[in-house]
Amino acid sequence: MRWIYRSTWGDGTARICYDRRVKQKSIHAYHGRRRVVIDRVRPEIDAGAFPIKRVIGETVHVEADIIADGHDHIRAVLRYRPAGGRWAETPLHNQGNDRWTASFSVKKLGFYEYTVHAWIDHVDTWIHGLRKKHAAAVVDEVDLSIGARLIADTAERVRSAGASHTAEARRLAEIAAGLEVPTDSVDHRVGTVLAPATIALLDAWPDRSLENSYATTLRVQVDRRRAAFSAWYELFPRSAGSGTTHGTFHDVAARLPYIARLGFDIVYMPPIHPIGTTKRKGRNNSVTAAPGDPGSPWAIGSAEGGHTAIHPQLGTLEDFRELVERVRSYEMEIALDIAFQCAPDHPWVAEHPDWFVSRPDGSIQFAENPPKKYEDIYPINFETEDWQALWQELKDVFLYWIEQGVLVFRVDNPHTKAFPFWEWAIAEIRREHPEAIFLAEAFTRPKRMYRLAKAGFTQSYTYFTWRNDPAELREYLTELTTTEVAEFFRPNFWPNTPDILHEDLQTGGRAAFIARFVLAATLSGNYGIYGPAFELLEHTPSRPGGEDYLHSEKYEIRVWDLARTDSLAPLIRQVNAIRRENEALQDNRTLRFHPCDNPSILCYSKRSASGDNVILICVNMDFHATQAGMVEFSPLAVGLPDQPPFVVRDLLDKATYTWRGYWNYVELDPRTRPVHIFVLER
Amino acid sequence: MRWIYRSTWGDGTARICYDRRVKQKSIHAYHGRRRVVIDRVRPEIDAGAFPIKRVIGETVHVEADIIADGHDHIRAVLRYRPAGGRWAETPLHNQGNDRWTASFSVKKLGFYEYTVHAWIDHVDTWIHGLRKKHAAAVVDEVDLSIGARLIADTAERVRSAGASHTAEARRLAEIAAGLEVPTDSVDHRVGTVLAPATIALLDAWPDRSLENSYATTLRVQVDRRRAAFSAWYELFPRSAGSGTTHGTFHDVAARLPYIARLGFDIVYMPPIHPIGTTKRKGRNNSVTAAPGDPGSPWAIGSAEGGHTAIHPQLGTLEDFRELVERVRSYEMEIALDIAFQCAPDHPWVAEHPDWFVSRPDGSIQFAENPPKKYEDIYPINFETEDWQALWQELKDVFLYWIEQGVLVFRVDNPHTKAFPFWEWAIAEIRREHPEAIFLAEAFTRPKRMYRLAKAGFTQSYTYFTWRNDPAELREYLTELTTTEVAEFFRPNFWPNTPDILHEDLQTGGRAAFIARFVLAATLSGNYGIYGPAFELLEHTPSRPGGEDYLHSEKYEIRVWDLARTDSLAPLIRQVNAIRRENEALQDNRTLRFHPCDNPSILCYSKRSASGDNVILICVNMDFHATQAGMVEFSPLAVGLPDQPPFVVRDLLDKATYTWRGYWNYVELDPRTRPVHIFVLER
Repeated sequence: MRWIYRSTWGDGTARICYDRRVKQKSIHAYHGRRRVVIDRVRPEIDAGAFPIKRVIGETVHVEADIIADGHDHIRAVLRYRPAGGRWAETPLHNQGNDRWTASFSVKKLGFYEYTVHAWIDHVDTWIHGLRKKHAAAVVDEVDLSIGARLIADTAERVRSAGASHTAEARRLAEIAAGLEVPTDSVDHRVGTVLAPATIALLDAWPDRSLENSYATTLRVQVDRRRAAFSAWYELFPRSAGSGTTHGTFHDVAARLPYIARLGFDIVYMPPIHPIGTTKRKGRNNSVTAAPGDPGSPWAIGSAEGGHTAIHPQLGTLEDFRELVERVRSYEMEIALDIAFQCAPDHPWVAEHPDWFVSRPDGSIQFAENPPKKYEDIYPINFETEDWQALWQELKDVFLYWIEQGVLVFRVDNPHTKAFPFWEWAIAEIRREHPEAIFLAEAFTRPKRMYRLAKAGFTQSYTYFTWRNDPAELREYLTELTTTEVAEFFRPNFWPNTPDILHEDLQTGGRAAFIARFVLAATLSGNYGIYGPAFELLEHTPSRPGGEDYLHSEKYEIRVWDLARTDSLAPLIRQVNAIRRENEALQDNRTLRFHPCDNPSILCYSKRSASGDNVILICVNMDFHATQAGMVEFSPLAVGLPDQPPFVVRDLLDKATYTWRGYWNYVELDPRTRPVHIFVLER
Repeated sequence: MRWIYRSTWGDGTARICYDRRVKQKSIHAYHGRRRVVIDRVRPEIDAGAFPIKRVIGETVHVEADIIADGHDHIRAVLRYRPAGGRWAETPLHNQGNDRWTASFSVKKLGFYEYTVHAWIDHVDTWIHGLRKKHAAAVVDEVDLSIGARLIADTAERVRSAGASHTAEARRLAEIAAGLEVPTDSVDHRVGTVLAPATIALLDAWPDRSLENSYATTLRVQVDRRRAAFSAWYELFPRSAGSGTTHGTFHDVAARLPYIARLGFDIVYMPPIHPIGTTKRKGRNNSVTAAPGDPGSPWAIGSAEGGHTAIHPQLGTLEDFRELVERVRSYEMEIALDIAFQCAPDHPWVAEHPDWFVSRPDGSIQFAENPPKKYEDIYPINFETEDWQALWQELKDVFLYWIEQGVLVFRVDNPHTKAFPFWEWAIAEIRREHPEAIFLAEAFTRPKRMYRLAKAGFTQSYTYFTWRNDPAELREYLTELTTTEVAEFFRPNFWPNTPDILHEDLQTGGRAAFIARFVLAATLSGNYGIYGPAFELLEHTPSRPGGEDYLHSEKYEIRVWDLARTDSLAPLIRQVNAIRRENEALQDNRTLRFHPCDNPSILCYSKRSASGDNVILICVNMDFHATQAGMVEFSPLAVGLPDQPPFVVRDLLDKATYTWRGYWNYVELDPRTRPVHIFVLER
């Protein structure tokens, strides 16, 4: 009778591990002979439910707790592969306290998988004991015979691995036999085993028949480089014409040399679709539009079409495709704004009334935040019984624009659409288009923002705009760059947007614009500005205490004089060039804050992986008075061995300073030099 | 044609969630209409792979992140049940930042299960909007019609719930109809809905058709009270006789009044099995035994039997059963020592040679730590092909002693036996005997100790013995009582064991014994001493710098004079009585450390759940000189509102002090009063 192992966890002959979302499944033969235990593999987001994020070429540093009973030696490997590809392995090393580590780099777009395997190495255990016994001169013949048996078993494994390993198998069999030749001295026999070549050979052919694996296979979402390092320029195409004439894609094309010269990567346009006429908003967010008022581009859809149509005043689909090509010729790319909401005139409203909430009086429920009403917008009802068709249609909107050559999407208010939809849609789109980038415009509570990032969004808007003093910025950036959040949430910092003109910019003058710009561009690999409002220092709010622009471009065409001599364009150009030339500024994980005895000065550094490039930034957060203080910069804090004196060069004004100790004097005048961007001369 | 939802995670019509160990399985209908997301339910050990621990009557405080898109209102319930029983539910409440909490208490031994369900409550969302619109006087007829529809739906749900709810259904239908009577004023109609009775009725009948559940069902291991609050007294039965005559179970029975009077709960005896003769150890751990040397009780097994036999010199099985009954009559219980290792004479060696490692020369591999050899002990080979039979036999050892009336086991060196074995064996035994208590004697690296606790051990030995200054104790206790560790690891503090005579006791004199005893008995709900060595202040090591006792009882019979006037018995009796009378000392989770300006004084408090009982302890860790200092005791730090003056009474010497502020003077003289155990008079 076959003994059946009955236990509280099933029949025990197999141990089946599913991850929480049934995205992977693995079956381990389970029985008591497997003694190694692998726990707490990190990084791991929510028990493996979500992938971590990397860009091509980056490294994944993996840690695991690995233990076994007794004193036998453990060996462990990190296993990784592009999803669906062949597994590769690299050894993990015990860093103390049973924490083992190893790394791999990701080289292909899409997803990678990783997990940890470990086993007890009886050969290694025996060699370790042999060394100690030999040192104490207590090696017995039986000790050597034990080793001979282990090595002979290894030889057998090598032999069965195929003809190409015959020589190794023969060598191991010789060593095994030699161990039991009593006429040879113990010293000689031990020496043969402990020879580096023997050790290497034995290490290469471990007995893994009783290895265990971690319960879960974890995943990495691998994006292209621009997912982590990008500079966005937002503009309203309708203001790109001359005077108050409605701008077109041709006008945007004419603006491209300017944007490219400023050094941006991504040209982001608010929705380009037909704008609803029913309940259209007028200038300054008036609930009634005057004749000729262009309406908000976010009130999407009219008789002329919806999310896959183009607002006729901007041009044709052909014009748009031409623009996409033109942008590409400048090594930039277009970002479109995907806002899943409908003006009352949107074709979906008539075609799919069940995608919206209908009221008992037969009307469709508009957006509201009681007692406020937003009658120009119908939200989509994600609880519709027809959700499959809805999801498919929404996903197809992205695919349509991908067909037109767009790969970057700024998604409007994703936190007002169901989370499961995003997880599904982004995964579906990335399956065919892993180069697609999705920026989540969710200004909401932290857990909702983080959940969207976990669901697959490539980049995320942040609270940066409302982190205004050095302590707040330190705390927020520490959370974003040093905690688990850094594994899945890629911040994109914006000093302004068409919706947000922060009080700092309203009252801080040019110094505030410079400081907030430099902070955004250097604290975060991804950042953006809404222009030309930003470079032209637009700072008048619609009302005192508000954060909306007066004469907001959301509701009217604006005329911008790009040639103004006070434009920040030269500084922006310079900083974007510095970002491109200094690898240190292209990643967030190396960010470190440095103490300054003046609390108005924020001081931080970033370094390249090699340490060859170290950037140190000092920002005066008082926009009205000169602030000076002593800044502590210890290269040790950024992992470098350098000793004083240090030579630092300001990349903005080229001035060079020699710092003779760890504490050094800086002075920042908001009128002449509100920031330093130093490079450490090494 | 039925639309099939194809996605990257499977066919999508069902979402199957398995926990990592396949101990539970749950299937959620998955589709996009379910908008609530539940994450990070805590406590949760290793993604739910292991249970948390509680004793009967304790509370489980559960937290979860619960979010949804948009602004709709969420409701959530904590679901819990004794495993296999009926689910109960209690609402979770949002504590801010989308963190929801609720609690339940465990009332039955065995396992409980818990998880979280949540849904969007459209009725509650509508009521919230109605309140705001009513306040702003903008309620439309259509707003009331929307509510009428929602309430009519509720009425329908109530009706279909059965005849016993007819009255509620009728009342709801009336309210729904009343909302649409235009001749009634809006005020009147809104008032009807907002009446507390209506709100309560609507709250009681939510629409949960689109609820979601957390991915995992989590577990609680529920033990009896003694699992968390116990005082152990270890003694060698063979030294319980008169003079050097080998003691018997009858002698132990005669010692019981003494042990009971000291206030202990558990009488723990080293292994009581036949002791091997081959390679038997002599006195003071000598590798050769002299004639008459009794040998180590941990060298288990001889011709007279193994782990289910009794050493003939101690008595018979009948004697043992009598002793078990006698111990019970004192409201104490026996703990046996289960040490899975064999002397060369153990019957298993002949019967199951394949349970051990055999060497090429045909001998069996003894224990070794190269170059040291322990030839009196054969370790068990958990990699044996016959592992099922081995596991069964080892488990049956516990079951055998449970049949004899023993429910408490101190397990010797569990970290040298395979972890999967313990997880299986303890679960198997607890299935029939959930009152069984297992104390893990693993002095090893932290992750191995914690893994054993996760695997099911009820209590664990700790590093307490080697945490000797106030800072070390603070740090260690903070880890044990305030981190996730507190959920699964129950410490048992021992100032001494037969193997460990710490330097503090060797050199610190009576003050050290008192301090270490009070620390053990008040820092941890579970503690123990090895007596009579402890109460008789035995402090001579086998060699300078060592931690073994000279003339260790492990290898010889000792004669103890319990009547010695310097015995600590009176203090021990007093402290055990204080532990029983003061609920504050019966749990570890309320432990708080309080500042003292003298670093030699450790000060801490514990409180009962109600706050009625607060104990404050001050220990002089300098055993050679009087130390005095100011101690800060703020009741706020322990969650109490009391203001100075405070009256504290020392439970040892009954002295009373009035403290007129938060900082108060204490003075501890190692010769006369090395500790204070204050109760706060409330």
